Amino acid sequence: MAEKKKMVEAITSMEEDFAQWYTDVVKRAELIDYSSVKGCLIIKPAGYALWENIQADLDRRFKETGVENVYMPLFIPESLLNKEKDHVEGFAPEVAWVTEGGSEPLEERLCVRPTSETLFCDFYKNNVHSYRDLPKVYNQWCSVVRWEKTTRPFLRSREFLWQEGHTVHETAEEAEERTVRMLNVYADLCEETLAIPTIKGKKTDKERFAGAMATYTIEAMMHDGHALQSGTSHNFGDGFARAYGIQFTGRDNKLHTPFQTSWGLSTRIIGAMIMVHGDNDGLVLPPRIAPTQVVVIPIQQRKEGVLEGARALADSLSEFRVKLDDSDRSPGFKFAEQEMRGFPIRVELGPKDLEKGSCVVVRRDTREKYVVEISKIRDFVAELLDTIHTDMLERARKHLNENIYEATDYREFKDIADNKPGFIKAMWCGDVECENKIKEDLSVTSRCMPFDDQTPISDKCVCCGKAAKHLVYWGKAY
Amino acid sequence: MAEKKKMVEAITSMEEDFAQWYTDVVKRAELIDYSSVKGCLIIKPAGYALWENIQADLDRRFKETGVENVYMPLFIPESLLNKEKDHVEGFAPEVAWVTEGGSEPLEERLCVRPTSETLFCDFYKNNVHSYRDLPKVYNQWCSVVRWEKTTRPFLRSREFLWQEGHTVHETAEEAEERTVRMLNVYADLCEETLAIPTIKGKKTDKERFAGAMATYTIEAMMHDGHALQSGTSHNFGDGFARAYGIQFTGRDNKLHTPFQTSWGLSTRIIGAMIMVHGDNDGLVLPPRIAPTQVVVIPIQQRKEGVLEGARALADSLSEFRVKLDDSDRSPGFKFAEQEMRGFPIRVELGPKDLEKGSCVVVRRDTREKYVVEISKIRDFVAELLDTIHTDMLERARKHLNENIYEATDYREFKDIADNKPGFIKAMWCGDVECENKIKEDLSVTSRCMPFDDQTPISDKCVCCGKAAKHLVYWGKAY
Repeated sequence: MAEKKKMVEAITSMEEDFAQWYTDVVKRAELIDYSSVKGCLIIKPAGYALWENIQADLDRRFKETGVENVYMPLFIPESLLNKEKDHVEGFAPEVAWVTEGGSEPLEERLCVRPTSETLFCDFYKNNVHSYRDLPKVYNQWCSVVRWEKTTRPFLRSREFLWQEGHTVHETAEEAEERTVRMLNVYADLCEETLAIPTIKGKKTDKERFAGAMATYTIEAMMHDGHALQSGTSHNFGDGFARAYGIQFTGRDNKLHTPFQTSWGLSTRIIGAMIMVHGDNDGLVLPPRIAPTQVVVIPIQQRKEGVLEGARALADSLSEFRVKLDDSDRSPGFKFAEQEMRGFPIRVELGPKDLEKGSCVVVRRDTREKYVVEISKIRDFVAELLDTIHTDMLERARKHLNENIYEATDYREFKDIADNKPGFIKAMWCGDVECENKIKEDLSVTSRCMPFDDQTPISDKCVCCGKAAKHLVYWGKAY
Repeated sequence: MAEKKKMVEAITSMEEDFAQWYTDVVKRAELIDYSSVKGCLIIKPAGYALWENIQADLDRRFKETGVENVYMPLFIPESLLNKEKDHVEGFAPEVAWVTEGGSEPLEERLCVRPTSETLFCDFYKNNVHSYRDLPKVYNQWCSVVRWEKTTRPFLRSREFLWQEGHTVHETAEEAEERTVRMLNVYADLCEETLAIPTIKGKKTDKERFAGAMATYTIEAMMHDGHALQSGTSHNFGDGFARAYGIQFTGRDNKLHTPFQTSWGLSTRIIGAMIMVHGDNDGLVLPPRIAPTQVVVIPIQQRKEGVLEGARALADSLSEFRVKLDDSDRSPGFKFAEQEMRGFPIRVELGPKDLEKGSCVVVRRDTREKYVVEISKIRDFVAELLDTIHTDMLERARKHLNENIYEATDYREFKDIADNKPGFIKAMWCGDVECENKIKEDLSVTSRCMPFDDQTPISDKCVCCGKAAKHLVYWGKAY
C-alpha cells in the first residue's frame, strides 16, 4: 500500500533512534506543534483530547477521596517565594519573572508559578485557625512555568499543564496517610486507565522535592529501558507550615503547627504513554483513554449498501467513542492513519463482508484480525477493548520485569548500566557521595527505594562497599 | 433564630449598598478570597465548583457544534503581539511583561497572554495551506492576564479564567455564521442553564473588540439595573489573517486569505449569576449549575430514627447533587447557611415528620414550603428543580423587561439615566462623538444594537438630533 508507506516513512524506527522515533510520532500523530515561543509547545486537538480524558479520570478519582478544586493566582510575589529556604533554592534559578505591568515597572517582581506551595501556604495561614478547619484537601488544574534549557514534547517544556494538590492536616500520621493515598491514586490511574505498570517507592534525599520531608514517586519504564518519573507525592511534615506561620488551635485548646502534603501529575504522563505502548507504525493508545476507540472504515464505499452498512455499524457502537471515516481517501491511507493515531480498534466493512453479514475487526496493538458477525459487534468490541487494555498492561509489565537487573558490586553495576537498558537493583549506604559518583560515572540516577522490594540482596553499598542501608532501583531517566 | 441572624448580619442589604452587598455575598458564601498578589483572587471550592459546572455545560455545547480543544502557550513574544495594529493598541497598555527567565534577561520581552488571537494566527499560518484544512474550529480553556487598576471579584481582576474560541474559514459567510452561532450558544447557556435572560446585539465601533470587524454581545441586566456584558463573539473578517499572512490554496487553485472569528466567556458570568438572582440572605443558585441542589437537614437529629430517616431520604435523592448536613450545628444555623450558599432546595426531617411519613421542602428562591410524602420525594424534587429554574428565568426576564425605557430626546434620556436604573432604548446617528458625549455626561455607554429590536422609535439621534441610523440599548455597566 503506497499510501501507508507514504504516511509512515517519516517515522524513524525506534531501534534506529528512539529519541527521533518519539519526536516523529508526536508530530505525525498530530499531538503537538512547535510554537514561536521558545521552549513552549502547542497541544493540538489529538493531544489535548488525551489530556482531557486523563483529567476527567483523575479528577473523578480525586473527588472520591474528598479532594476539592480551587484556583490560585498565576503569580507569586518574590517575598512570598523566599519564605521557605530549600524551596526557593530549588526553584528560583528556573523561574520567569514579570517586572512590568500596565506599562509601569512593578514595585516587587512576580514570578510565574513554577509550583504553588507558597500561595497555598499563604492561603492556609489566613484560613486555618482551628482543628475544626482541618483537613483541607485542595487541588488545582493549571499550567506552570519552569525555564528549562533543553525541551522535549510533553517531557520537558517551559510551560506545562498539570494538577497540584495541597493539603493541611492536624496530625503527622494523617499527612503521611494522604501522601501515600495520593501516590496510590496515581499508580491506579496508570494501571487501570493507561495500562502502565509502575514501581512505587521513596526518593532519596538528593532527589527529594525542594522543601519536602519525604517524596514518594511512581516510576515507569519506557520501551528503551529508561525510567520516567510519572507522578510524585510529597510529605512536607510541618516545615512549610512553620516557614509560613500556619497555626491552629487544637483539641487541647493550645496552638499547634499543622502538617502538609502536595502531589502532582502532569502532561508528562502522555509522554510515558507514548513511550511505553507505541511502535514503529505510531501511537498505540490504551482503550480507556483513546479519544477514538473504534474507527469504522468502509471498503469500496461507492458500492451499493456499503456506506449505509458502515453507518449502521458505527451507530450500533455509539456507546463507545466511535468514528466513521467516510472521507474520500483510500482504505490504505485510512488504515495507516488509524495506526499512526493509535486508535485501538479498526472495523472494516466491504461489499463481500456485507453479503456474509460480517465485518473484519483489527486490533491496533497486536494487529490480530477477527471476522465478526455484524449482529454481535457491540459485545465483541466491548470485550475486545477490555482485552486490549489487559494485554497492553501485561506486555508492559513483562517488559518492566524482564528489564530489572541485580548488581552487587560496582563492576557488575557498571556493566549493566553500560550494556543493558532497564533498572538496576542495588544496595546503597545512604550517602549522597555514592549517588553523585554513580551519576557522574554512569549517567544513572537513583529512581526510588521501592516499597514492595526491600529484601537486601547484599549487605554492602554497591558503590563504596560500606554497610548498606537501602535497596535502590537505579536507571537512566527522562 | 439567633444563629441565622449571626450568619446573615454581615451582609449589607442590596437596597442600602448594592456594591457592598455583592462583595459581602461572594466573601460570606465562600466563593473567593483575596490573595497576597495585588489584583488577583483565589477561587475557593464553592466558587470553583460553579465554574466547573459552567465549563462542563458550555464545553458540551461547544463540542456539539464541532469545536475541538487545544492549548496554546501562556506567553506571546512582543514582535508577534505587534503584528495587528488595532489589536496591539487595544491590549499593549494593560499587559504584564516577562523580562527575565532562568536568572537571565530575555532577548525579547514576552507578554503574559491577555487573549490569544496572535498565537492562534501564528499557528494557523503554519497549519492552514489548502481549503481542505478548513474550517478550523478551536477553543482553549485557560487563564488570561490584564493589568487592571481597579478590581472586583469575578467582574474585573488582573487574572481571570475563561475560554477563547478561534476559528478560520474559507468564506466570509461561514465566518459570520460561526460568529452568530457561538453568540447563540452563550445566550442558550445563560437562559437554559443559568436562568439569565440576555439581549443579543451588535456592539458599536467604539465598543468593538480591538482588531475585529464586528463584535456581537449578550448583555444581561443585574438586579440594580446595571448591564453586564456576559459573552462576546467577534467576526474578524480577513484583517488578522492579512496581518499574520495566513493564506490557503482555494478550490480554484489560487491563493486566498481566510476569514476568522473569536469568542469568549469568562468567570465574569459567575458575577452575573450572583447579581441577577441573589437576595439579602445571600446567593440564589440556578438549579442546573448549583454544586449542591438539595440539602437534607435533620431536625432534633439525636431523636431515634431521625438521622437514619434523613440518610435514607438523601439516598433516595442520589440522582441529584444532594448533601446530608448531619453536623452538630443547630438547624437554624444550617438553614441560614443553606440560604447564604444558595442551594435551591432544603429538605427538613424531624421526629414529627417521620411519624407522618412526610418531610418539609423549602425552596431557596421563593421560600415557599411544601409538606411532601417521603415516598414521593424523588419525583417532587425533580419537578421542583425544573420549576425553580423556570421561575427564576421568568422573574429575571420580567425584571429586564420592566426596566427598559424609551427616550426620544436628550432631556428624557438624561432624566432616565439619572433616575431610573435599567436600559434605555434610544436612536443614534452612528457618530462616536455622540457616544462620547453621552458617556461623559451621564456615565452611560452603548450596550448594543439589539438584533431583535430595530424598529425605529424616532427618526432623530437622541443626542445630536441628526438623522438616526440605529436603535441602541444604553446603560450603566459593570
